[in-house]
Amino acid sequence: MYNLLKGKRGIIFGALDENSIAWKTAERVHEEGGIFVLSNAPIAMRMGTINQLAEKTGSQIIPADATSVADLENLVEKAMEILGGKIDFVLHSIGMSVNVRKGNHYTNQNYDFTEKGWDVSAVSFHKVMQVLYKKDAMNEWGSIVALTYMAAQRVFPDYNDMADNKAYLESIARSFGYFFGRDKKVRVNTISQSPTPTTAGQGVKGFGGFIAFADKMSPLGNASALDCANYTVMMFSDLTKKVTLQNLLHDGGFSNMGVSQEVMEAFEEGLANKND
Amino acid sequence: MYNLLKGKRGIIFGALDENSIAWKTAERVHEEGGIFVLSNAPIAMRMGTINQLAEKTGSQIIPADATSVADLENLVEKAMEILGGKIDFVLHSIGMSVNVRKGNHYTNQNYDFTEKGWDVSAVSFHKVMQVLYKKDAMNEWGSIVALTYMAAQRVFPDYNDMADNKAYLESIARSFGYFFGRDKKVRVNTISQSPTPTTAGQGVKGFGGFIAFADKMSPLGNASALDCANYTVMMFSDLTKKVTLQNLLHDGGFSNMGVSQEVMEAFEEGLANKND
Amino acid sequence: MYNLLKGKRGIIFGALDENSIAWKTAERVHEEGGIFVLSNAPIAMRMGTINQLAEKTGSQIIPADATSVADLENLVEKAMEILGGKIDFVLHSIGMSVNVRKGNHYTNQNYDFTEKGWDVSAVSFHKVMQVLYKKDAMNEWGSIVALTYMAAQRVFPDYNDMADNKAYLESIARSFGYFFGRDKKVRVNTISQSPTPTTAGQGVKGFGGFIAFADKMSPLGNASALDCANYTVMMFSDLTKKVTLQNLLHDGGFSNMGVSQEVMEAFEEGLANKND
Amino acid sequence: MYNLLKGKRGIIFGALDENSIAWKTAERVHEEGGIFVLSNAPIAMRMGTINQLAEKTGSQIIPADATSVADLENLVEKAMEILGGKIDFVLHSIGMSVNVRKGNHYTNQNYDFTEKGWDVSAVSFHKVMQVLYKKDAMNEWGSIVALTYMAAQRVFPDYNDMADNKAYLESIARSFGYFFGRDKKVRVNTISQSPTPTTAGQGVKGFGGFIAFADKMSPLGNASALDCANYTVMMFSDLTKKVTLQNLLHDGGFSNMGVSQEVMEAFEEGLANKND
Repeated sequence: MYNLLKGKRGIIFGALDENSIAWKTAERVHEEGGIFVLSNAPIAMRMGTINQLAEKTGSQIIPADATSVADLENLVEKAMEILGGKIDFVLHSIGMSVNVRKGNHYTNQNYDFTEKGWDVSAVSFHKVMQVLYKKDAMNEWGSIVALTYMAAQRVFPDYNDMADNKAYLESIARSFGYFFGRDKKVRVNTISQSPTPTTAGQGVKGFGGFIAFADKMSPLGNASALDCANYTVMMFSDLTKKVTLQNLLHDGGFSNMGVSQEVMEAFEEGLANKND
Repeated sequence: MYNLLKGKRGIIFGALDENSIAWKTAERVHEEGGIFVLSNAPIAMRMGTINQLAEKTGSQIIPADATSVADLENLVEKAMEILGGKIDFVLHSIGMSVNVRKGNHYTNQNYDFTEKGWDVSAVSFHKVMQVLYKKDAMNEWGSIVALTYMAAQRVFPDYNDMADNKAYLESIARSFGYFFGRDKKVRVNTISQSPTPTTAGQGVKGFGGFIAFADKMSPLGNASALDCANYTVMMFSDLTKKVTLQNLLHDGGFSNMGVSQEVMEAFEEGLANKND
Repeated sequence: MYNLLKGKRGIIFGALDENSIAWKTAERVHEEGGIFVLSNAPIAMRMGTINQLAEKTGSQIIPADATSVADLENLVEKAMEILGGKIDFVLHSIGMSVNVRKGNHYTNQNYDFTEKGWDVSAVSFHKVMQVLYKKDAMNEWGSIVALTYMAAQRVFPDYNDMADNKAYLESIARSFGYFFGRDKKVRVNTISQSPTPTTAGQGVKGFGGFIAFADKMSPLGNASALDCANYTVMMFSDLTKKVTLQNLLHDGGFSNMGVSQEVMEAFEEGLANKND
Repeated sequence: MYNLLKGKRGIIFGALDENSIAWKTAERVHEEGGIFVLSNAPIAMRMGTINQLAEKTGSQIIPADATSVADLENLVEKAMEILGGKIDFVLHSIGMSVNVRKGNHYTNQNYDFTEKGWDVSAVSFHKVMQVLYKKDAMNEWGSIVALTYMAAQRVFPDYNDMADNKAYLESIARSFGYFFGRDKKVRVNTISQSPTPTTAGQGVKGFGGFIAFADKMSPLGNASALDCANYTVMMFSDLTKKVTLQNLLHDGGFSNMGVSQEVMEAFEEGLANKND
């Protein structure tokens, strides 16, 4: 619509189906003139419909297990070949908790599962950046974004070990962002998004109720996947060159609310009912 | 109980009646061996029962309008005379919004009222410290504490302009705390306390419901006035000498909660009811 | 360049001369297709060269003392007349400390000066919003931005009472942002900008040294006035609709640095020298 | 000195030698009337002099690899036997990065090392709490503290992957703290301590210079190991019962400083020298 990303090349991780934030982002980046390769884990690709997205946006798909440095090296090299140059933008939208999937309560973790979820959800972000950095694969003033959630700062009981993974992810953004900024003029940020009804999000217990809670708490309501895609486009554009090491709250105002009038009213009514 | 404040001298502002946090603090400081003068605004003193507290703790009362530098100068000088030396601890528990009292919505402020509330609730803290600093009235490793509320960081709609006043107050703690620390080895902190059913707090609209909300949100429940008094004693003691410029959350965990299970359950029930 | 603000109408406060962030923002907004009125205090207008900016951007100037509700009411009404409709964006770039100008140390404030600086630098933001809100002068999904500085969170000794004013300003953004969001779908944010060599900034003692410190600390270096203008354009555009109540750090990464290698090296050399 | 911990039982992890914060804490807890068992990794015990501490404080030592759930189960059971009841306080002072030890730069991590450091430094805290929780081994109003460092929030380039580990650790404190608070009335906090010249700390590159930087930045100077021990005693005492889920900055004010005058002066001199 605005040609904000004309001439820019990127890699987008994590588009599963049309509900994915990464999917919407790919569509919006395409509209803004950016070109990119899509990547997802082989297993995720079998479950989703990423081929439609590739076709629609004229993109190629390069499968990669984001916990495998070898896969990521292959991906980055191929991406530069396909796109014809160094990379300008990267979206990391990858997360998964085996403890959540298996129904293990946070106080009853299986630590092999914990390790697996941490590796997939958080360390993968370091691996992506380490490969890009070592291969000198990013253009100056490029932009790397990872999606995160406010459970990294505050407790949402059902978010389980994903909270800790997101805290680690956000720390990587700062730690690696320093070196990527200083050495390559690349910015690294996380976007902390409203709870979003993606296919992946559905797995979290009580997600529907929680989406309503966040929506009623936020003065502008929850940010949608499309809203997030728009914001990510901005973070990829040349208008945000000096924003780095930040965790950007994109949530209709949720993060700075103590309580909204609507939430308080529902709470008081619910409490009164219970005490009847 | 522990003699934590034996030999220490202080000034305690803002004890109105036995529900006041400052009142409980005075009692606890007395139990811990500290001596102090009590101060409050002349008008507040007529409304309360501070004489009982003075008697109980063997303290003298020095009225002072905390917005008057002259009053504060008199107070500090008298306090040192009465107590026999420089000051070791100060509690600032002063706050009042004329807009709240008059029922002006936050979007419909009378700016004369705004100015008055700001002067009483926030600037008074600067004035207290400026007088103490200029008179060199604090002992090394003394401790200054002001009470605040989390509305300084997050929106609680009915808290009105007190939110902005508390933000200013907390900033004063940092700004002045730097100079007081560097030059006099005095620490300055704010304690951000759970909503507390004090006589002053009653004025805030919907306070009862809000107290319940905070209580159900906090894993340990709301901190009481007595809990706050204990925490303040700790901040006055020699065991916290290197804590400064901090805003100390004292709230049963509220500040780092996204949502608790209990709040979510009440919310969902309330919402369902409404949609029936 | 991108037509990001085509069809949008706004008010820009605080353009003094070509070094001003507001000046650069006006230029960039103009390039992006937005139309606006310029406003500044009558006294500031005599000192600056705002007429050139008005000419260059085809804008009209409406003088207003931002501490005067009457002036602001006149401004908002005239702006809607001139621009032909409700307002989509507002930039508040207003700040001044009389204590700084008069050389009063933070521990030696003149409280009349403190009050004046607070009114100009912070309360003016509330007044602007209260007038806009009461007149229902903002379009849905409009965007209001105020410029701030990180001294609101951390101590910069020479920043004086402007630190406290900025803390109050940021609190207003949250407090008013809730009501503006809920009732009018308008977002309100502050941008916390790198120290910028504007004409106004020069007044702060030791500003040159501090700019170098911030620049060496930040992995991407300081954000310039033009960088800030670009970021503000982004915050005025339709791509950031769900960002509200936020304090957006725009600083080349400074805010999340503990220390950079370059700062540490200079520090160690300076310390060694001193100890020689 | 005050009998603050009379009748309380605890477990103290991580006392290596007399420079350790855990060592000082054990001494202070002992002075305050608390009893405890000491625990450390078998390998660390061979390097240190923990036997002297055990003797001095009348404590028993139970070796445990804090990454081994079986070892921790044994430890907790034995501790309750030895101490004659449930646990009131726990100090987790455990951290180690293999990448740091092996000299791997943050942008050149060996991910096996990353995983090991994460397990030792961060997950061990979850394991300790999960064992305590499942065995219902904590008394009501007990207190669990882990030591952390501000690199979890801001970049200190040489801190390497320990920054990310500390971010994960702090997140565990919140996540587990919710359940421990709600279900068992136990509080969980982290103390974010000034850089401290412990034997472990020496391993970090450029640590000496950094300690000087932090000291000159902090209005009260760095907090020592003994200061930290005192603060931890307070967090174990009954005076802080409602503080939970917090990351408590214990740093002489460092965390809320933008820059101090002393640091600025050294920086400017160092910069001038360099440019000569």
